[in-house]
Amino acid sequence: MTAHAAREGRTETPHHGADSPGHRTGVWFIGARGSVATTATAGCAAIAAGLHPPTGMVTETPPFADTGLPPLASLVFGGHDILDCPLPKRAEALAEGGVLPYRLPTAVRSELDAADAEIRPGGPLPGDTRTDQQIIAAFAADLTDFAHRHELARTVVINVSSTEPAPGPDDPRLPASSLYAAAALRAGCSYVNFTPSTGLRAPGLADDVADCGLPHAGRDGKTGQTLLRSVLAPMFLQRALPVRAWSGSNLLGGGDGAALADPAAAAAKNAGKERVLADTFGTAPEGEVHIDDVPAMGDWKTAWDHIAFDGFLGSRMVLQTIWQGCDSALAAPLVLDLARLLARSHEAGLSGPRPELGFYFKDPDGGTSPALAEQYAALLAFAERLRGMA
Amino acid sequence: MTAHAAREGRTETPHHGADSPGHRTGVWFIGARGSVATTATAGCAAIAAGLHPPTGMVTETPPFADTGLPPLASLVFGGHDILDCPLPKRAEALAEGGVLPYRLPTAVRSELDAADAEIRPGGPLPGDTRTDQQIIAAFAADLTDFAHRHELARTVVINVSSTEPAPGPDDPRLPASSLYAAAALRAGCSYVNFTPSTGLRAPGLADDVADCGLPHAGRDGKTGQTLLRSVLAPMFLQRALPVRAWSGSNLLGGGDGAALADPAAAAAKNAGKERVLADTFGTAPEGEVHIDDVPAMGDWKTAWDHIAFDGFLGSRMVLQTIWQGCDSALAAPLVLDLARLLARSHEAGLSGPRPELGFYFKDPDGGTSPALAEQYAALLAFAERLRGMA
Amino acid sequence: MTAHAAREGRTETPHHGADSPGHRTGVWFIGARGSVATTATAGCAAIAAGLHPPTGMVTETPPFADTGLPPLASLVFGGHDILDCPLPKRAEALAEGGVLPYRLPTAVRSELDAADAEIRPGGPLPGDTRTDQQIIAAFAADLTDFAHRHELARTVVINVSSTEPAPGPDDPRLPASSLYAAAALRAGCSYVNFTPSTGLRAPGLADDVADCGLPHAGRDGKTGQTLLRSVLAPMFLQRALPVRAWSGSNLLGGGDGAALADPAAAAAKNAGKERVLADTFGTAPEGEVHIDDVPAMGDWKTAWDHIAFDGFLGSRMVLQTIWQGCDSALAAPLVLDLARLLARSHEAGLSGPRPELGFYFKDPDGGTSPALAEQYAALLAFAERLRGMA
Amino acid sequence: MTAHAAREGRTETPHHGADSPGHRTGVWFIGARGSVATTATAGCAAIAAGLHPPTGMVTETPPFADTGLPPLASLVFGGHDILDCPLPKRAEALAEGGVLPYRLPTAVRSELDAADAEIRPGGPLPGDTRTDQQIIAAFAADLTDFAHRHELARTVVINVSSTEPAPGPDDPRLPASSLYAAAALRAGCSYVNFTPSTGLRAPGLADDVADCGLPHAGRDGKTGQTLLRSVLAPMFLQRALPVRAWSGSNLLGGGDGAALADPAAAAAKNAGKERVLADTFGTAPEGEVHIDDVPAMGDWKTAWDHIAFDGFLGSRMVLQTIWQGCDSALAAPLVLDLARLLARSHEAGLSGPRPELGFYFKDPDGGTSPALAEQYAALLAFAERLRGMA
Repeated sequence: MTAHAAREGRTETPHHGADSPGHRTGVWFIGARGSVATTATAGCAAIAAGLHPPTGMVTETPPFADTGLPPLASLVFGGHDILDCPLPKRAEALAEGGVLPYRLPTAVRSELDAADAEIRPGGPLPGDTRTDQQIIAAFAADLTDFAHRHELARTVVINVSSTEPAPGPDDPRLPASSLYAAAALRAGCSYVNFTPSTGLRAPGLADDVADCGLPHAGRDGKTGQTLLRSVLAPMFLQRALPVRAWSGSNLLGGGDGAALADPAAAAAKNAGKERVLADTFGTAPEGEVHIDDVPAMGDWKTAWDHIAFDGFLGSRMVLQTIWQGCDSALAAPLVLDLARLLARSHEAGLSGPRPELGFYFKDPDGGTSPALAEQYAALLAFAERLRGMA
Repeated sequence: MTAHAAREGRTETPHHGADSPGHRTGVWFIGARGSVATTATAGCAAIAAGLHPPTGMVTETPPFADTGLPPLASLVFGGHDILDCPLPKRAEALAEGGVLPYRLPTAVRSELDAADAEIRPGGPLPGDTRTDQQIIAAFAADLTDFAHRHELARTVVINVSSTEPAPGPDDPRLPASSLYAAAALRAGCSYVNFTPSTGLRAPGLADDVADCGLPHAGRDGKTGQTLLRSVLAPMFLQRALPVRAWSGSNLLGGGDGAALADPAAAAAKNAGKERVLADTFGTAPEGEVHIDDVPAMGDWKTAWDHIAFDGFLGSRMVLQTIWQGCDSALAAPLVLDLARLLARSHEAGLSGPRPELGFYFKDPDGGTSPALAEQYAALLAFAERLRGMA
Repeated sequence: MTAHAAREGRTETPHHGADSPGHRTGVWFIGARGSVATTATAGCAAIAAGLHPPTGMVTETPPFADTGLPPLASLVFGGHDILDCPLPKRAEALAEGGVLPYRLPTAVRSELDAADAEIRPGGPLPGDTRTDQQIIAAFAADLTDFAHRHELARTVVINVSSTEPAPGPDDPRLPASSLYAAAALRAGCSYVNFTPSTGLRAPGLADDVADCGLPHAGRDGKTGQTLLRSVLAPMFLQRALPVRAWSGSNLLGGGDGAALADPAAAAAKNAGKERVLADTFGTAPEGEVHIDDVPAMGDWKTAWDHIAFDGFLGSRMVLQTIWQGCDSALAAPLVLDLARLLARSHEAGLSGPRPELGFYFKDPDGGTSPALAEQYAALLAFAERLRGMA
Repeated sequence: MTAHAAREGRTETPHHGADSPGHRTGVWFIGARGSVATTATAGCAAIAAGLHPPTGMVTETPPFADTGLPPLASLVFGGHDILDCPLPKRAEALAEGGVLPYRLPTAVRSELDAADAEIRPGGPLPGDTRTDQQIIAAFAADLTDFAHRHELARTVVINVSSTEPAPGPDDPRLPASSLYAAAALRAGCSYVNFTPSTGLRAPGLADDVADCGLPHAGRDGKTGQTLLRSVLAPMFLQRALPVRAWSGSNLLGGGDGAALADPAAAAAKNAGKERVLADTFGTAPEGEVHIDDVPAMGDWKTAWDHIAFDGFLGSRMVLQTIWQGCDSALAAPLVLDLARLLARSHEAGLSGPRPELGFYFKDPDGGTSPALAEQYAALLAFAERLRGMA
């Protein structure tokens, strides 16, 4: 049974006519043919069709009931990418790598085809002679066209492309991530930066961001090693156990591994990983973080952390953690959560950075606590607030 | 410079005449010659003398300033034990094992001698023909005598002895831990059970506990693997990542390793380790916990946890943790914290179980959250409350 | 392209008319529907067809060229099992669990069907009233019939069923593994015990074994944790670093996990794991081995070892290893190796236990070195000897 | 009891008048005040005095009995260093860090003082205007003077200083390690390079090395992570399990950690770690090695290795190892072994590189096997040969 057929057969009442024109929500991925976007697109279809439980989606847990989030079945996917591998083929490769269940690409083939048809060329590619403004205008036109054709109530733009190197301070051009982000604002779309790239934080976009009247959130999704750090670091702090050194190594293949083999990109990524420690302890402990590109790992990732801490009377103790997961599968449910939460924020008239979403980010907007427990409490409070607005 | 000399040289104003008669607080250890009690006794002297920072003592962090806790220098140590190895010799052995800094036993020799002089024979030993009530009366007399001779404002009794096997349901006698606990109440002392032993939870003591008008806390200090579990389990829950199996192995030598080689004692210990998981997830995941006696490890302990969890679309992920620490050094600062918090609770007229102290226990009193972050918040609120009472 | 088609298309010269009657070798699995047998059967077909390289098969490496081993394409599979799940369905389940490549069950469907048709009911099941001799005769008849119908040159019987509990000393009946082993000898088949079960080592079979004139090998395949131990223990010995304690934990699901949840079966398994340490060091170091049944792990297994050793002047050092693999995929190529080596030994007229095969076993026959390097050297010398006999 | 007193009390027959003039062997350390040299000097005294067993010394195991090695009590220590911290103070610091037993510096105080008196200034320091030849002559004079005053039969020079950056190809000067090595040859001393530094392998020394008529050995002692690799890599090879990626991270403090924070020095070190893999597999697998300077670790080191390998039919498996040890304690017994083996080789008239000692090195001389088991066999054969020469 395909996802389409499964969905047809569902007998429960559709949520508020979720599928009808004007009630649909657009989800536009920057990096739409990448592992994260492909996994999110395929997974959304599979969950909406009842083929899989919504594992890893916080917005599907009880505290988010009746908060007015757009149903998964109402999401329409599109995006930009500079690659041209068709989504169904990409999904097939992910299934071979064990990231997607092996029958899933077939089961959600029609949804993958539909999303594939809505992917527009990204850029700029080498040799592109357009100005930044021309590129922004072109991207924004893609977004407007997408919304118009699908009669979307609103669209959330989410950057899930590979990490770009941090731009130099005197570079007169906006980095690509900022061109996409500026286009989102221009097209009236809310925006999420799930990567460590610059996005809305380019100095040249400060006025646009201030005046946009749109909600936005980011930066750099917290999926694995940093997620762990956001619960372990507070533990050491609360127990008055001084951390002497916190060292980490990450092994990953896939596109992200290759991108992060660029030292400038790795530096951008590492900054986020160390921020949680510096924010928790006041000062970053000794220790480095390495990110190794290991193509043999494919989409799977291993992160080892070694934490040397002092006990009573200076006794030396050590905690080590080994996290083995699939980055795409860790990121995808958070991306779907964020698409729904931003769309709902937009609908509710909220604008500006959303510090309530610090739970999802290594480098959250606004002055949020670095501790996961407090971030979760803030997220629950936000859910309560949205419920009141419904 | 010995601790005594160092203390004499301190120029800061003493806290409320902490050392003067009537302002001193007794700390009475069940298992007073064990590693934890020896480490706590030596460490308290070293910290009070300024020889070491109070690493691991939560009550020495800023939120506990001005909450009226008894100063470390005002604590007077004594206890029961069935062994007769002198404390200074015990401390020397701990220094050889790397648990205590190697010059410390010499530096705090006079304090160790003083505590050693206040250790009374424990029991009951095989062949003891006294009734439970006779034993309780004898233990209580030891406590009263201790308080009287030192003109103590009050005394906290803390069980830090080896884990005893869980008593059978039809055993007519109280287990030793309960005899000591009953003696504490009879002598008007507050009580902390830092072990998984029965203590005040014997059915036969229910009335005494209900009527005692004294504060008490416990059971089973949360020092390592369970501490970790109390931050990791909430993380999985908050991120909607179902834990499929949580398995653990503990290797430890020392007295605790030998005691826990007894399956009945190990069962008592494991119950606490698994409770945090069951309490967090609603039901305990698959997986066992092993405790191995490995004499070669001495007082050092290694705990390995393997957590198999599901990611998006059922992808299989794994977190492993390896915790390497010294049990005595992990426990001692918590024991000193609890001594101070119970003494202060007693002074403030609080009685009954203190759920605010769930932060310290695997198996806390009352209906407290199993999540460390929430337990810490409750502890801070308690500090605030104590400050208001000062 | 199916394996059959792929094989047909091969242009290389067939080895000695491997597929022709009288040149085929039978491989008869005890536990023919289990994970190991299914993986070996499917994998043999896939490799013979050129669909996969022979990863993990030592007999396919250069030192074994021209040693006269039966080609993979000449092996004919059959076996006994008490279960009745069809092999193709079993293979499909293994593919879903990630043990087999997901297109493999389809590609080798005809070979799986053929093997499935040659599986006979195992036993004895509860209520079976036959005597041991009657059961042995029935099993032997199955073997003779198999050889006759396929015109096999010879057959190797390999026990890959779940570990059975060690029999009590006074049990008058032979354990099932010994009934199968006795049947192998009676039918003139060489025999391999890849499990810790009793097999040929039952006292009651001693005369049969002595008189059989057939080669046999075993016991208990060395696939993971023990394989590691067989290289690490010699390293410590050679470097004069005394091992103080060697502790291990195994987590596994699948059929083997469930079987080993029986303490008697686990004891049989653990004996093998500890043997390599005792044999290397002269005496077993401190430390226990645990085997936990964790159904959530499926066919995947994690083994953690913690080795506490002394360095210069008694400094304490630790090595920890974490081995994560799929038991069936580790065992299957060794099983195919052994089938070929035993068949070739039989052809060459060798009989009795084959200590040259200690490389493959936790508990090898004869007085072989417990060190893998020496076992490998012995295996290479055996290959050389076989080459000379070709 | 001091080591001196303990030695006096020994009743066994001295080996060949080991202490008498003309029978003593000099051990001259480059880096004589470093952790390794201090540990070796103190440890030799302690073992000779019977205070500690010779843990980690392969030359004290039975196969080396009666091979004519100089007794530990006959070794006389001296060396070069550019630092001036007295050896007894250095030993005290090592005891505080847990590297040496805490009573040891006192027990071997007189031996440490004696060695301290034989340490000469190393170099060249910045501003030194001497030519390479002048420096070599000065170092050689120090060696000759040492031998003369102590009436030494012969002296072994051993480089245990911090790793120096690999020299550039066009550098006209010899690196410091080569100046010391050249001085050794000029003074007629055998030479061991226990570090990855250039030593005798400078192109400018090729003629001197060819003509010296002295035994020499090296380079880069194999103490931890590479030791492990030298048993694990052969295991994967012998089992036909292809290693897809081998990644490693090292955390260490102490002087070596700081030296290796220099990328050029780290590159020299890593080359050795990867050589064993390339030599075993024919080509180096994917994966990087990181060496982090973590001062909080002191002399203790943690090395994590992650080995991704393929199983049957391409199944993905992983082995991880965590090695926690004290570098000085790992190195010191090997250094003492090498001092004895080189002195004995010299006495026996052997000259040139000694491939029989590949067991001790990451980057051995000559064409030795990278597998530890084969290296050990070669070492045992060498012991046998020496015995025959006695």
